[in-house]
Amino acid sequence: MQLLKDRIRKDGKIKAGNVLKVDSFLNHQMDTDLFVEIGKEFKRRFADCEINKILTIEASGIGIACVVAQQFHVPVVFAKKTQTKNIAGDVYTSKVESYTHGRVYDIIVSKEFLGKGDKVLLIDDFLANGKALEGLAAVVEESGAELVGAGIVIEKGFQVGGDIIRSKGIRLESLAIVDSMDEETGTIVFRGDEA
Amino acid sequence: MQLLKDRIRKDGKIKAGNVLKVDSFLNHQMDTDLFVEIGKEFKRRFADCEINKILTIEASGIGIACVVAQQFHVPVVFAKKTQTKNIAGDVYTSKVESYTHGRVYDIIVSKEFLGKGDKVLLIDDFLANGKALEGLAAVVEESGAELVGAGIVIEKGFQVGGDIIRSKGIRLESLAIVDSMDEETGTIVFRGDEA
Repeated sequence: MQLLKDRIRKDGKIKAGNVLKVDSFLNHQMDTDLFVEIGKEFKRRFADCEINKILTIEASGIGIACVVAQQFHVPVVFAKKTQTKNIAGDVYTSKVESYTHGRVYDIIVSKEFLGKGDKVLLIDDFLANGKALEGLAAVVEESGAELVGAGIVIEKGFQVGGDIIRSKGIRLESLAIVDSMDEETGTIVFRGDEA
Repeated sequence: MQLLKDRIRKDGKIKAGNVLKVDSFLNHQMDTDLFVEIGKEFKRRFADCEINKILTIEASGIGIACVVAQQFHVPVVFAKKTQTKNIAGDVYTSKVESYTHGRVYDIIVSKEFLGKGDKVLLIDDFLANGKALEGLAAVVEESGAELVGAGIVIEKGFQVGGDIIRSKGIRLESLAIVDSMDEETGTIVFRGDEA
């Protein structure tokens, strides 16, 4: 998605440790006009699919998922990262290792909102080592729902997540795949743009 | 907002301890078509105001804020609840006591995304004791930005938050104010509907 790649090149900041900061438009400050275009692109890519629910994970996936969902006219369910007293005990759970925070946490989704008959699209802002997406896929499987695919805004193509998810036979659509980036020069190479 | 009140009466569940569960459409599963109507209503109520940024708090405020923001065509910034390594050290902070989780946490907003000249609308799903909204207002004040007002989807009118926020002179627009609810009978009384 060229609009997104241009925005990443313009406003993304490459930091030590292969960190790509896009918090000026994607995951701290959020450009919802851009999100609308992202939603249209996911709708185009999954036009052949029947989807009745979008599943994401808190926190930064929620905003994108809610704007994307308006294109599909389906509800969003977000997996929560800790058990709160407002969630009933009847939940699907999975463990997720966080790359960003360096710890393992539980994700939970109420059984009320996911189950057999649901056709689910996963949406998240980033795919790096794939742990969050694997956790969401595990929750979908546990629920008996059908996993239609996963839509990712930015995939770090030099990390293992994309390969892991694709090798499981999950249809993965990433709108921008970063194959390499250079902190010194500030250059970013996107997959498909190498030639 | 009648559409919202009807939906709360239809799908809200009253639980012990004055808990109103609306997680089938507002804060776990999210009905984004309803969120669009909520966005239009906030746009109508704040039509006389100049607003260039919406500030909310993770997690359940993000989805609503992002859909509301599409009506205003302004970016959303969400306050994060813990310091992650992807946030620069240069942040505004405030302490917030969580009613739901029974603990105190820090909220942080990067100084890059809020400051003098910004005209800020706060958006959140719930207002109960007002601690989250007070924390967001403190962050806005610290930043030097102008606080235009706060838009809340559901205010628990029998808790102190609304009074505290209004007594500070903050313009508060709550789309549904629950004045009382009865766990036994399942009845909900909204402010303005008592007669």
